[in-house]
Amino acid sequence: MTTVKAYAAPGPKAALEPFSLERRAPRPHDVQIAISHCGICHTDLHLVREDWRAGIFPMVPGHEIVGSVTAVGSAVSRFKPGDRVGVGCFVDSCRTCASCREGVEQYCTNGFTPTYNGRERDGQTITYGGYSESIVVDQAYVLRVSDKLPAAGVAPLLCAGITTYSPLRHWGVSAGQKVGVVGLGGLGHMAVKFAHAFGAHVVLFTTSPSKAADARRLGADEVVISTDETALARHVSSFDFILDTVSAPHDLNELLVLLKRGGTLTLVGLPDRDPILKPRALVMQRRQLAGSLIGGIAQTQEMLDFCADKGITADVEVIPASGINEAYARLLKSDVKYRFVIDTSTLRA
Amino acid sequence: MTTVKAYAAPGPKAALEPFSLERRAPRPHDVQIAISHCGICHTDLHLVREDWRAGIFPMVPGHEIVGSVTAVGSAVSRFKPGDRVGVGCFVDSCRTCASCREGVEQYCTNGFTPTYNGRERDGQTITYGGYSESIVVDQAYVLRVSDKLPAAGVAPLLCAGITTYSPLRHWGVSAGQKVGVVGLGGLGHMAVKFAHAFGAHVVLFTTSPSKAADARRLGADEVVISTDETALARHVSSFDFILDTVSAPHDLNELLVLLKRGGTLTLVGLPDRDPILKPRALVMQRRQLAGSLIGGIAQTQEMLDFCADKGITADVEVIPASGINEAYARLLKSDVKYRFVIDTSTLRA
Repeated sequence: MTTVKAYAAPGPKAALEPFSLERRAPRPHDVQIAISHCGICHTDLHLVREDWRAGIFPMVPGHEIVGSVTAVGSAVSRFKPGDRVGVGCFVDSCRTCASCREGVEQYCTNGFTPTYNGRERDGQTITYGGYSESIVVDQAYVLRVSDKLPAAGVAPLLCAGITTYSPLRHWGVSAGQKVGVVGLGGLGHMAVKFAHAFGAHVVLFTTSPSKAADARRLGADEVVISTDETALARHVSSFDFILDTVSAPHDLNELLVLLKRGGTLTLVGLPDRDPILKPRALVMQRRQLAGSLIGGIAQTQEMLDFCADKGITADVEVIPASGINEAYARLLKSDVKYRFVIDTSTLRA
Repeated sequence: MTTVKAYAAPGPKAALEPFSLERRAPRPHDVQIAISHCGICHTDLHLVREDWRAGIFPMVPGHEIVGSVTAVGSAVSRFKPGDRVGVGCFVDSCRTCASCREGVEQYCTNGFTPTYNGRERDGQTITYGGYSESIVVDQAYVLRVSDKLPAAGVAPLLCAGITTYSPLRHWGVSAGQKVGVVGLGGLGHMAVKFAHAFGAHVVLFTTSPSKAADARRLGADEVVISTDETALARHVSSFDFILDTVSAPHDLNELLVLLKRGGTLTLVGLPDRDPILKPRALVMQRRQLAGSLIGGIAQTQEMLDFCADKGITADVEVIPASGINEAYARLLKSDVKYRFVIDTSTLRA
């Protein structure tokens, strides 16, 4: 066991504060990772605030983890000390259900083991996330990260990156297609980068006119202000695919009618209020409304390799661990371009 | 011009009564059809009652038409007098949009020409449907019907048949799959027959326990009473595809969770009240909610040929034209197994 420094929320909705936790010694299949950076995902905020369900406290959030290998178990062949690696939203899964066998562990029928605020497969051991100095993870759930990319910008790829990359790939976004991205936050800005990299004509939908210039810089070909009915009307029945990254309640029906026949609107956010659906928009042009959850280990690796090849990272604001609470407050106001990333070396200070 | 006998609703919500209308003489590409049978679709009732929009009156409903060719225009090569033919929900479309060019005329961007309660491409001439002695239709919108099948049972294939066949084919329902059908009415009973014929394991969802035996007779392997939470729970995450034929307001979310990862729930009915969607069911297993509208001419022909090959027709109750109003009253109470079909020879009496 190793005692490591971390930041934890001692209870629901409480401010995060310094905390110590124990990490296990590497088992045969384990990789021990010194964490260099960890992204702050909106989910971290939701779980600390118990917006979705009761949490396990003290809670050490963080599932956008980048670091380097410091030790490996006796059976580890895929990693060696010094390798740069990443860990995302889960650190294990049942490994036996159809989803696990097919490499889409995020849909594990028995429930994946979340990187924090969950329990290991033993049903007992609490998991603690990346707001910490180090972590120990089974090699099957560890990703290789190229040294070519800056670590801070890579961290958000492990959640915001794969959450947007996976649906864009699953629904076959490709060159020549017209693709919409709704919302320009942590997820949306990655979706714009990926859809642009795939060769699509990218239209960013936002309620904030002030984001237009930035959207174009990130790769959007057009920007539509979502409240502008006239602008929306010009795009009716024209999109092959729309990725909706917005969690705030909003109208799905005015997005559905923007799809071509057979097009798909995919949700990756979970709005607090359940939307009302107008089935006519689906029936009249055989449109689809779908959802997507992060991505599997194989596709996350594919995404990281793609990013290394294309030089894609997240736009981040790097903060010290002591700045987490301020970052949370700013995140609530969407005041970040586009992801806070904790420099976890500051935990050691 | 030919004067033909028909039944029309003189105004909104009015009882249907005998009516005379003029059919054009066949133009070069036209087929003149003596109608033998016409199905009564729930849409007929909705349009007469102006449930969806203002109607054009007097209205002669009917878009499940079977008959025989009595004359053809000079340029008609595909049909000759004496051929048994069918006409479905539309009698023309723009022929230039992507949907028309790809043979999915039901999604015509410029709007197909409905068989009744619409206007021809000239924007003037009102269309009158199959509750009449005869009809004249461009050969491109006429279907060949095998003499092997009884005409009365074929009529509903032109709407109820293709409306269910098309989504089952589009989403790839095939042998070995587990497929749900929601509702056992005109559409649902055809969906059960088709899904069974495609080799799927078919589960029929109904609120009426009294329909269970009939569902099995039609091809269902299992029947689930939709209000039985325990029965529903046994089927969570197990369906490849579910076809929802119910127009009455109902909960889509308890159906969505019955889908496997990646499964699709497709709506072919338009509920009067817009349902509330719980996006979690979509996101957590990458499920899809979709809609589908009738089918194109090519696929309708494929369906009719499939039915001739497999001996599939609708279960019908044949009525005289004078029985239309009584049939409408019974239809409102879902009191029919499973489609009323008008013997239009009774118009001549």
